[in-house]
Amino acid sequence: MTADLQRGSVPSTMPNDAHARPTGTSTEPLYDVNVPTPTHAERARTLVSSVSIGTLCTLAREPEGYPYGSLVTFGLATGRPVFLISELAEHTKNLRQDARSSLLVAESHAGDPLANGRVTLVGPCAPATGEDLARASEAYLEKYPDASYYADFKDFAFWSLEVTSVRYIGGYGRMSWVSVSDWLGATPDPIAGDAEAIVEHMNQDHADALPLYCRAFSRATDVQSARMVGIDRHGFEISALTPAGARPIRLAFPEPIANKADARKALVLLLKDARAKLGLGAS
Amino acid sequence: MTADLQRGSVPSTMPNDAHARPTGTSTEPLYDVNVPTPTHAERARTLVSSVSIGTLCTLAREPEGYPYGSLVTFGLATGRPVFLISELAEHTKNLRQDARSSLLVAESHAGDPLANGRVTLVGPCAPATGEDLARASEAYLEKYPDASYYADFKDFAFWSLEVTSVRYIGGYGRMSWVSVSDWLGATPDPIAGDAEAIVEHMNQDHADALPLYCRAFSRATDVQSARMVGIDRHGFEISALTPAGARPIRLAFPEPIANKADARKALVLLLKDARAKLGLGAS
Repeated sequence: MTADLQRGSVPSTMPNDAHARPTGTSTEPLYDVNVPTPTHAERARTLVSSVSIGTLCTLAREPEGYPYGSLVTFGLATGRPVFLISELAEHTKNLRQDARSSLLVAESHAGDPLANGRVTLVGPCAPATGEDLARASEAYLEKYPDASYYADFKDFAFWSLEVTSVRYIGGYGRMSWVSVSDWLGATPDPIAGDAEAIVEHMNQDHADALPLYCRAFSRATDVQSARMVGIDRHGFEISALTPAGARPIRLAFPEPIANKADARKALVLLLKDARAKLGLGAS
Repeated sequence: MTADLQRGSVPSTMPNDAHARPTGTSTEPLYDVNVPTPTHAERARTLVSSVSIGTLCTLAREPEGYPYGSLVTFGLATGRPVFLISELAEHTKNLRQDARSSLLVAESHAGDPLANGRVTLVGPCAPATGEDLARASEAYLEKYPDASYYADFKDFAFWSLEVTSVRYIGGYGRMSWVSVSDWLGATPDPIAGDAEAIVEHMNQDHADALPLYCRAFSRATDVQSARMVGIDRHGFEISALTPAGARPIRLAFPEPIANKADARKALVLLLKDARAKLGLGAS
């Protein structure tokens, strides 16, 4: 997970971001807005998979019924947040009395915190049993191997939150309730972990390629300079400086990519196509 | 606020930390445990004052009564968390239906997240009015001046959480319910913002002084090396390497300090006293 993927994948000047849009600029998109884009379910799943801590919200015993937030580490087992928590902890005592809970997971990139993505997973939380326990234990300890020390403590147990509602907020003006089936069916973006490095590499070493993508595949034909701001399995995003200011461009890969090598291959091929389309020789 | 102040001020080998204590080492403190130490109320107030974002927990309308966590920025006005939130946001709609809420504020230092401090402030949250509104607006906009843009939006308003319970967790094994009057009466440590730099300076440039403090003012007379791990207005903490392993030492200033210059003065004077006590010449 990178700042660029989550924050850049729909740049802050996107048409759906009413607050951040500079005044006086046209908002007519310069690219085909129907290109494949990660769904909110996929973005949410990617985000939750990349973050280590969250806030577990439970219902307090005293003052009764108050929502109570506490810091937790969590794993994700087939879409369910799983916890290794002590019976001595407030949240566990709360859950013993009332299973209703939610988990807020937020990115923590620098800059405006409200521009960061976050996800709230709502549902009942109960001790994991049977197959659910095996999955919870595996998912949690894979993420926090040192916690195996606590797993044997008598007061610690694995708990599992059965997700019944999913709220996704990708930043200003980008939010929705994600259906539980979409949440469960989504998978984290496989290149999320590499996105930041790819974006940096493109901007540092292939800055000349970026305006060519814009000129060949978008209506930003008068682009002055361009900067990659995000990449995901479906495509990538560019902030294009035009005479009318910075404008977002999203371009799709011919087919979804699965890893960093795919990204490289796809970006090289697209550049070749762009040069051909623009009547430029091979680079 | 620094990692060192909050995490180091009671090092992980402190007697009250049952989990982290290395096996086989003596746990008899090597220093006077009655030296002035920040109270949990003061630690909590320092922590909350130093962090920009938190999780606001409200009660959902659907699924009804579920605790719902959302990301918020907040100010602190005479001990009350204050928010600038939109009527369009889920948490605001929730609060309109049920004022019960809490705010979790957590440090976000690298390393084991559960070793970080966090505070949960519980109480009803309502739109700020009258004098409360003036204080809320001032406290919030002082922290987030850019938010003044939103303050004029018709759907945004300042809300204020009236604290009725305070839960403080300083890391493993250090936690308590803080009384509301202690919370309201506490002030943030004035040197919290400088603590990290002071600690770094002492360890880099005055590493030779640290064992002298230990030898003169604690029972760690066989100290092999020493590292400052925290400083606050009341004193400072050292991790002393002894033949029995690393041991925590806390030493107090003669009187509370108010700023970085005071810290310097106090540390220099204490070193002079230490050298005199140990029969060493002036440095």
